[in-house]
Parts: sequence; structure tokens; C-alpha cells
Amino acid sequence: MKFFSDNAAPVHPRVWAAMQAADAPDKAYDGDAISKQLDAAFTALFGTDCTALWVATGTAGNCLALSAMVPPHGGVVCHREAHIEMDEGGAPGFFLHGAKLLLADGEGAKITPASIRAVIDPIRPEVHQVQPHAISITQASEYGRVYTPADVAAISALAKERGLGLHMDGARFANAVAHLGCHPADVTVRAGVDALTFGCVKNGGMSAEAIVFFAPGLADVVRFRRKRAGHLQSKGRYLAAQVLAMLEGDLWLDNARAANAAAQEIAGACGSRLIHPVEANEIFVILSPAEQDALRAQGFDFYDWTAPPGAPGAARLVTAWSSPPREVEALARAIRSL
Amino acid sequence: MKFFSDNAAPVHPRVWAAMQAADAPDKAYDGDAISKQLDAAFTALFGTDCTALWVATGTAGNCLALSAMVPPHGGVVCHREAHIEMDEGGAPGFFLHGAKLLLADGEGAKITPASIRAVIDPIRPEVHQVQPHAISITQASEYGRVYTPADVAAISALAKERGLGLHMDGARFANAVAHLGCHPADVTVRAGVDALTFGCVKNGGMSAEAIVFFAPGLADVVRFRRKRAGHLQSKGRYLAAQVLAMLEGDLWLDNARAANAAAQEIAGACGSRLIHPVEANEIFVILSPAEQDALRAQGFDFYDWTAPPGAPGAARLVTAWSSPPREVEALARAIRSL
Amino acid sequence: MKFFSDNAAPVHPRVWAAMQAADAPDKAYDGDAISKQLDAAFTALFGTDCTALWVATGTAGNCLALSAMVPPHGGVVCHREAHIEMDEGGAPGFFLHGAKLLLADGEGAKITPASIRAVIDPIRPEVHQVQPHAISITQASEYGRVYTPADVAAISALAKERGLGLHMDGARFANAVAHLGCHPADVTVRAGVDALTFGCVKNGGMSAEAIVFFAPGLADVVRFRRKRAGHLQSKGRYLAAQVLAMLEGDLWLDNARAANAAAQEIAGACGSRLIHPVEANEIFVILSPAEQDALRAQGFDFYDWTAPPGAPGAARLVTAWSSPPREVEALARAIRSL
Amino acid sequence: MKFFSDNAAPVHPRVWAAMQAADAPDKAYDGDAISKQLDAAFTALFGTDCTALWVATGTAGNCLALSAMVPPHGGVVCHREAHIEMDEGGAPGFFLHGAKLLLADGEGAKITPASIRAVIDPIRPEVHQVQPHAISITQASEYGRVYTPADVAAISALAKERGLGLHMDGARFANAVAHLGCHPADVTVRAGVDALTFGCVKNGGMSAEAIVFFAPGLADVVRFRRKRAGHLQSKGRYLAAQVLAMLEGDLWLDNARAANAAAQEIAGACGSRLIHPVEANEIFVILSPAEQDALRAQGFDFYDWTAPPGAPGAARLVTAWSSPPREVEALARAIRSL
Repeated sequence: MKFFSDNAAPVHPRVWAAMQAADAPDKAYDGDAISKQLDAAFTALFGTDCTALWVATGTAGNCLALSAMVPPHGGVVCHREAHIEMDEGGAPGFFLHGAKLLLADGEGAKITPASIRAVIDPIRPEVHQVQPHAISITQASEYGRVYTPADVAAISALAKERGLGLHMDGARFANAVAHLGCHPADVTVRAGVDALTFGCVKNGGMSAEAIVFFAPGLADVVRFRRKRAGHLQSKGRYLAAQVLAMLEGDLWLDNARAANAAAQEIAGACGSRLIHPVEANEIFVILSPAEQDALRAQGFDFYDWTAPPGAPGAARLVTAWSSPPREVEALARAIRSL
Repeated sequence: MKFFSDNAAPVHPRVWAAMQAADAPDKAYDGDAISKQLDAAFTALFGTDCTALWVATGTAGNCLALSAMVPPHGGVVCHREAHIEMDEGGAPGFFLHGAKLLLADGEGAKITPASIRAVIDPIRPEVHQVQPHAISITQASEYGRVYTPADVAAISALAKERGLGLHMDGARFANAVAHLGCHPADVTVRAGVDALTFGCVKNGGMSAEAIVFFAPGLADVVRFRRKRAGHLQSKGRYLAAQVLAMLEGDLWLDNARAANAAAQEIAGACGSRLIHPVEANEIFVILSPAEQDALRAQGFDFYDWTAPPGAPGAARLVTAWSSPPREVEALARAIRSL
Repeated sequence: MKFFSDNAAPVHPRVWAAMQAADAPDKAYDGDAISKQLDAAFTALFGTDCTALWVATGTAGNCLALSAMVPPHGGVVCHREAHIEMDEGGAPGFFLHGAKLLLADGEGAKITPASIRAVIDPIRPEVHQVQPHAISITQASEYGRVYTPADVAAISALAKERGLGLHMDGARFANAVAHLGCHPADVTVRAGVDALTFGCVKNGGMSAEAIVFFAPGLADVVRFRRKRAGHLQSKGRYLAAQVLAMLEGDLWLDNARAANAAAQEIAGACGSRLIHPVEANEIFVILSPAEQDALRAQGFDFYDWTAPPGAPGAARLVTAWSSPPREVEALARAIRSL
Repeated sequence: MKFFSDNAAPVHPRVWAAMQAADAPDKAYDGDAISKQLDAAFTALFGTDCTALWVATGTAGNCLALSAMVPPHGGVVCHREAHIEMDEGGAPGFFLHGAKLLLADGEGAKITPASIRAVIDPIRPEVHQVQPHAISITQASEYGRVYTPADVAAISALAKERGLGLHMDGARFANAVAHLGCHPADVTVRAGVDALTFGCVKNGGMSAEAIVFFAPGLADVVRFRRKRAGHLQSKGRYLAAQVLAMLEGDLWLDNARAANAAAQEIAGACGSRLIHPVEANEIFVILSPAEQDALRAQGFDFYDWTAPPGAPGAARLVTAWSSPPREVEALARAIRSL
């Protein structure tokens, strides 16, 4: 029973079907008929003109988007525990040619105007120090916390004031929107986001994310950067098909709702064990080593986490669109019985 | 009737089947059971210990392999018309942090010890000039020409003498081996190749190539570079499955033989129109604009090519594992009738 | 008797004097009173608003200027034998983060609109190929040839038409202007140049060149890039003093005239030995190995050069502002006597 | 009366004299007779074979040294307030091609084995996280604190254990050695340092630092990197002369002793105002805004500093080899009178 990562989940049947329907020969790269539908599909989703490019991984999506906003001598403000800082093997340094991540604090791995200011205000506006050029936020955050439209708008207001781009790493964007119950535009373009990495892989896809550009000009740069990074796949139609399948009939939201509901069921069993409020599909819980062993002995698989001060141990549990209800229920029961 | 590119071809049914068999949840990235089989599978294929990493594109495969051989201040000798020079959007400059391509000549887009020496011998061995650190050859070449084991061994001897790494871009490696009829090791590890980009996408795969390392140490660096380049997919098992399916029962060779046979059938119809001997699955033919129009009017799709001096026009025709025999036959007939 | 390189020449007494006058404590970096005079001095020289930054080397000057015009995924058109291509140890790849040099031909190491078009017209305007973003020309060229105002204007017209920046590597700009007898603006800003590396080191300076920006916006980027490249010296006033001394009383022109005159005197002795017309301070001559030995035996030092086809050997002779008239005369006599 | 920065100080007369003695024509770059003496001079100083390269700035020296130890996908441990992190405009990101600085804590801007371990031990040894490849320490530190031979040896032991290179930023190395009274080798090569940036500019030089390599192999890489970074000056003899003049007759130590003594005199006047013990030539003092104004009104120039928690304000005072005794005395008196 896998609660290790949503990356372990299988591919959704409708995504498989769309990929197979893309099998007919067509133009290479993104010249095919399916890739050409992406802009329109996202324009319909967000209710505003936008440009979308498929890419195989979130790391590539995040870093390519930022590479159009930040010169090599610039910096990107992000949370101290953001994926781009902690888990991308230095990819921002590669894609941004040595630009610097400027690390902000914030509860639940969410940054705020105040925590951003605490990082950028002390930067002397001269050549000895790296100047900020963009802000990147993660929706939902590394601790499964969700930025509300007001949260994003406040950050965007600061970004505009300081002339910074605003990027959203949406590896779990679907889970965030499912939690918020808002229109996807409310928490992105209407709140001032310039580019969004729209995650699919953790949510029923196989190997395709989309970078959605709301600000003009960025996509034209990223097209070149994507090729240059070896991310322009020659049979791109299979990636485009995955993304379109996720949008079709709001599969992306349905899948996220399923994962979130599973997470809520488990969270309900955790009570005071919860380290963070559960808003998306990740549950961070205090579990002593003995308790972890007990759960593992019952067949539950999950990720060790660093215990907060004073706690005997901790774990990260992740649900997915495909988490079997029986297993979710079993896990909730097992935690209650600890 | 598509003779435009082997990138347009569909995915082979056995590749599809392997991907679907990979759907069960497993560890993320390359920690899954299928990815772990790659080393053994290529060790069996080449008859020598080797390490293999999946990657989504040939551009990434080529550049990642070279990034382990060439420091940022170094250079790579390749043919003036090599894919890494002409068609990868500057990817070597990105992955190798500004290292330089040193361009050699050679008939049929194949370089030779003599043409390599013509490039590197004039380089003064001092800091004002970029020093060569590796050689990259394309098998089959951009003009569908094949390096024999003796060709490769001669280049490798020079590489060893000068302390240079040797990389083979094998986007159409299968077509080359099918043409040569040799053991795949004969034209790679036994001939002194250090790293091979083993192409699958043009040969029945969807989104997976393999970088095969014969020289020790290189793979350990590339593992970090792959992640850093956003090329470590979280559901890597679907890429590993593609590669293994290509090796299983020598599907890679069967597919290449089919494509090569189709190319031979068409080449047989071209006679003195042929610009290059046809050894793999690409046919470069002299066709006047009127002849091109005539073929297109009959439903044949292909790529315009730069005409050689004195010729009225030219085209590139590419066959694939999936080229329907009827269409191949029809094209041969149509060319004969021009 | 040194005719090896103008880099070997001593520092001009007036430059020494200016450096010593800068010895009083002042603000660090470029906050000092002398550095602040640079903009005005070049504005006066060129008769138009410009911004100037000191930098220690021509390599840094060229590459920093280009770094503000060319994104990492772009390209720079230059002559196949340009200093940035042949003699800067790959510096453009470093400063431009992997951008590509696109090599054009041209007699005397001068490129032309036609030779530039021959390089850029075949580039398909799509992501698989590196797109040009700037043109760099060397004044005087690597063969001591000089671009006239009309030459530059013609290249600039093409640059404007294609949206490319125009950079001039003026390591020997003074020699070129001395030869042309024109106003320095005629061959730069009035002819459409965006940024000029104004050379001083070969012309009586010690360790300071100036990057002069005619196009707005570029200097603001380069200020950051200069610091980031370790080229913002903490005692910058000693560099600023050198540059100002070169401008003061047109020392730059006087020095260049002296060097050019010496070159003309030697050229007059070379007759049909000359490989290129002598316009600046470099003389390329056909000299057989025996003749080279004979000259060296008489105490003349110079640089071996690659002989043109059919010639028995060749050498490069370089004069400087400080070439002693007696030695120049002696060399001319010695060549005549061969 | 300048206590703003040791960068403001003039050039020492013996350095001037050595530069002028270098004025005779000689080979360009580092092929001249003076540059060739550097290795022997540092070998004599440190009592062990070493290689030394001149370079114009400390930023370039630090980053070039590190570039030979750290691959683009690696990391460098340094103090959170190290010059390379705070004040070099992102130069490490440039020279190291996006490698990451891993920030450690430590009193007085000195890192310790424990604080280094606190940074590197949590790094998972896998591709998702940037792995450390080197440690960089600043001697004297950003707060004028000095690493003892035992301090360095302890860090070096950890470095060896983890396979990390050890670099020392010695912008104020002379001040540190003058304070310690030890042999310069005791705190470098005998304590396990691989490469040292030996500062001259703040200590009587004009535009030359030396990178001293104790570990073999590093200098050969850096020679190429120095050229590629535009830091191989064509008239390098003027830089070599500066460095040799600093070593000649231990001028480097005499100058540092003078600066340190001046700092001690001022420190003696500061009493409990001192924020850090004064070991080199920097004094960090608590001064209220009114006190700062009072001192400035008396003609003393210095740098504002961030006040420690609870303090009304702070300033940094820096002495130099050239600080006039009368001005030092006056400042001490003025502080006592506050």
C-alpha cells in the first residue's frame, strides 16, 4: 500500500487512451495537430489568452519559465524549502546560468510579502550584490499548504512594485485549486502570475507538464530554451495528448479531488499528530520510530520526514488520484489504532 | 504517405505493451525495478560491463554524455554538419557550459583521422586557443552513411593518442548495425567508443533513448547532470520499459532492418539521382522542383534538401520501421516513372 | 629589436604620470572621481552621449559588451579569424553562457554584408538552429585592414534590418582612425555601432581598455556583468586614469600615428612580399625560413605566420607607438637587403 | 581621514618602483621574465613547491581557484556572510557555471567543522541535492577574525574525510599572518589548504593578487580558465612585478603589521563598543547615529554597518598600511571622547 509519493501512481486510463489516439504519424516536435491545440485549451481553461508549452518534467518546466524572467546575473526569491532550492539538483543554477536563489522564510513553506521583503530589502541596489528579478511560489507548497487568491495577489502586488516576474510552480496546482474551489484563473492570471508550471505527472499523467504563460513574450524565449535544453521531444504529440486529456472534462480537477479526499480521510485519523494543516494531498504526521515500524509491518509504505523539535519522529504520507479507497481507509484505521 | 521523418512514425506495439506493463506503482525516478534492469540488458547486448541511463531525447543524450568528457573550457571535434552543430539549438553550448565545437570536414558527413587532424593539429597547445577534449561521431551520419568498425577504430586510435574521449551519437545506431551486419560491440566498445547515445525514438520508441557508458566514471557524473538538466523523469519506469522492449528479442535490429530494406527498395529506383550511397534509412535524391511537385501531388510527403552544385533540386526521403510496404513500393514506382 | 607584438611595448610616460596622480586615496571600485570622468570624456570625443566602463583586457571588453546584446541561446556573427573566435580561449562561450559564434568569411579578415548574409540567411528561423543576435567586427582587423565608415555603415544597415546589435572590437581602433583620418564617430556611432571596445593597452596603456556604449541600456547590464566576472577592480581609479591619459591631448591618436608611420616605413621595404595592404601597425610578409633566420640573426624579433599557398614562409611584424625609429629604419633596410 | 576601506589606500612606493622597473619590453601575457619568477618566490615563501598565478582581483582569484575544484553540478561550503556569497555580484555562479554556495554559520564569520557538518550532513547523497565539493574560508574573516593553524587543520581534516577541496580567500591573509605571528605555511599548506588567494591590493598593491596552488593539477586548469575569463592581461609583467614587490623583504608582512597596529590603537579606544575582537585591520564598533555624525563632522570617513540587536547603530572602521599615525591617533582620541 503505497503512500510514498504521487509520482509512483499509474497513468490514468483516459491519458493512456489519448496517447494511443496520438499514434498516427504526424509532424515532429511540436508541429503536430495535437500540440497546436494546447494554447486554445489553456486559453479556454483560464479565460484569457495564454500560450502553453509541454515539457517532460516539473524541474524543466520551473527552470525554463524562470529562465525567461531572470538574467544570469539576477536572482529569484523562493522559499528556503522550495523544490527548486532543495530537490532539483541545482537545476536553477544550470538553466539560469548561475543566477541565484534568494531564500525567504514562511510558515508551511509559503512565502509572504513580509518574508520576501525581509530578503530583498537588505540587498544594496548595486553591482556587488545579486538583484532579484523574479519570485517563485509553489502551489501547493512543499508542506501541502495552499496559497489563496488573496495570498497570491499580495505577493504579485509586491512583485509589480519592484519590477519582478512572478512564477508559480504548480506541480500540485490541481490539488490546490480543488482545495480552494475557485476558478483556476483566480489564483493565477487574475492574481498576477506571469507563468505557471501546470503539473500533470503527479495527477494521472505519465511524462508531460505544461508551462502556461500569461505574460506576453516569455513563451517565445522559452521555445528556444526548451530545444536548447534537450526538452523538445521529437514525438511531442504524445506529451500534448497527455496534457489535453488532463484538461478534457476537467480530469485534472477530478483526480485532484480524489487525492485530496483521500488525504482528508487520513488526516481525520491523525488528530494532534498533524504537523501542518492538510489542504492538498500530503499529510505530515508525527510518528515515533516504533509507530512507523508498526505501520510498515502492516504493509504501508511512506517517506521518513525530519521530526519537528521535540517530536519523536515524523513521516510524509502522500495520496494520489489512484489511491485505493480500501487502502486509504485501512491506513486511517491503522493510524487511529496506534 | 509519409517519408518526411522517422520521427513521425508511430510507437511499436511491443513498446506500447511494455509501457503498459510498467503501469503498476513503483519507486519514482530511476529507483524502480525496470530502470534497474538497464545496465544488465546493455551489458548482455554489448558483451561487456556497461552502465546505461535513459533520457528522453537524443539531444539530451548526446550533450549529457559529452558533458562528462569535456570541461567548460574545452572543445569537441565533430563534423561540420553534425546534428549537435546544426540541429540542437545550441544545446552543446548549454550542457557543456560554453565549450566549443571544433568542426571537421569529411565526405558523407563522416569525419576521418585525417580530417580530425586538420582541425586539431593547428591548435596551439596553450591557453589562447580552445583545446580538444573529445570527438563525437554520428552513426549513421547525417547523410545516412555508416562508420565501419575499422573507421571507428582508426578515429579511436587518434583519440587515445591525443587523450580525447570518443562519443557516438547513435540516433540511427540500429540502422547502422543492421547495415553492417556486425556485432554491436564491434563498432562501439571494441572499437574504442567511450559513450554511445543509443537511439530508440526514431526506431519504434516514443520518448526514450539510452546513454550507454563503456568507460568507467562517466555515468556517475551524468547521473547528476541528468537531474540538473530536468531530465530525470519522476515516472522513469515508462522510459526504461521502452528501452528494454527495444532490446527484447532484438526488436531494435528488426525494426532497423525493415527501415533499411524499405530505403534500399526506394534507392533502387533512384539510380543516378542518388546523392549519397544509401546505407541506412535515409535517401538523398536529386529531384527538380517539378518532379517534387509531381511526387507530392501523388501524396508523397518528404523534406526539401539543398541541391548539390549543378543539380536542379533535391529531397530527403526517410523510411521507418513502420513504412507500409505498399507505400514504399508506390514511391519507388513513382520515382522510376519520373 | 622587438617587432613581435604591440603588447610588449612599455607604458607611455603620460600614462604613468596619470596613474601616479591617481594615488591619493579615493572611493573604491568605480566610485572615485577619476572613473566618474569617463562618460564625459568619451562623450566629448565622440560628440554624442555615451557611457564608458573601464576593464582590464580586450577579451573582457569584447565579451562583456556582447553579453548585453546576445542571450545565452543566441549567436554572434564574426569573421572566421576574429580574435574572439581564435585567440580568446573560448571567452565568448563563457561570458555569453554558451552562445555561438557564427563564422563569416571575408578578405583581410573583414566581413561584409554579403559574407554575413551567407552565414545568416541559411539559418532556419526556428528553434533547432541558433539565431544571430549581434555582429562583431574588428577594427583594425586581424590582418591590419581597416573598415571605412562606409564599410561599417553597410554592415550596420544589415544589422538594423535583421534586428542585430553591432559591436566593434577596437583593440587597434586608434590605428584604424589614424589611418582613416576621419572623426572617430564617423566609423562608430555615426555608422551605427552600438558598443566599442576602445583599446589602450596596445597603444601606450598598461592595463585598461574602455567599453564605450552608444546604444542606451547596454551599460546598465554590463555594470553587473563586469562585477560578476571579477573585472570590477577595487582600485579602479588607476584604470580610469590610464584611459583619460590616452584621450588627453589625443595621445591615443598620436601614438597610433607613430606606430602606423613605422609600419609604413617597413611596408615600403617589403614590396611584393606583402601579403596584405598595410593600413594599421601590422605587416604580414612572405619570408622564407632562411630569410627569417637572417633577420633574427641581426637581432629582429617577430612572430612566425602561416605562409599563404605557394609561399616559402611568412612572418608578422608589429610596430608600436614606441618602436625606436633607428630600429624601424634598420629593419626596413634589412628587409630590402634580403 | 579615510577609514572607509583598505581599497582606498595608495600604492606602496616599492610596488610603484617594481612596476616601473618592469617597463622594458618583454613577452606578452605571462611569458615574461617577471611572471616566471612567481612560482619560485612563493615556493620560497611557503617552503614547499607551489604554483602561483597573478590575477587582477580577489573575486577573480577566489572564483578561479574554486572553479578547478568544483564541477558545475557541485557545491562550495562557505560562511553565510562570506565575500563570495555577499559581495561578489554572483561571481561564483558565473565562474563555477551555476554551482551552489552552501551556507554555514559561525561566530565572527568563521566556519567550524561543526557548522560545516550541520550544512553537509543533511544533504542526501543523491542526485536531487547538490553535493559539496569544496570548502572556502576567509582569512581574515569578514569580521576581521583570524583562523588559527589549528582551526584550519580541523576544517581540513573534515575536508579530507569527505573528499572536499579547501580554498582560502586571503584578501587579508597578510593581516591574519601578522596577527598570528606564525609561518605563512602553518596556516595554509601545513594545515591542509589546497589553494590560497593571496591578497595584495588591500595591502599596498594596485591591481594584482596571486592565486597560490599547493595541490598539484589545479593550476593547469586555472591557466585556461583565467584566459577564458579575460583575466590574462597582455602586459602581465606589471602584475607580476607588484606581487614580487610585496614578497620582497616581507613587505607584505610589514604593511600588514602597520595596518594591524593602527587597528589595535583604535580598538583600544573602543572598549565595550567593540562588536568583535580586533585581530586584523577591521574594527566593528557600536556607534549611535549621533556619534557617527560627530565623528564624520571631525572629518573621519567610514562605512555604516548593521547594528547588532539592541545596539543603537554600528560602523566598520578599516585601517591600511598607509593610515597616517596622526589620523589613527586622532580617531582613537575622538572615539574616547564620545
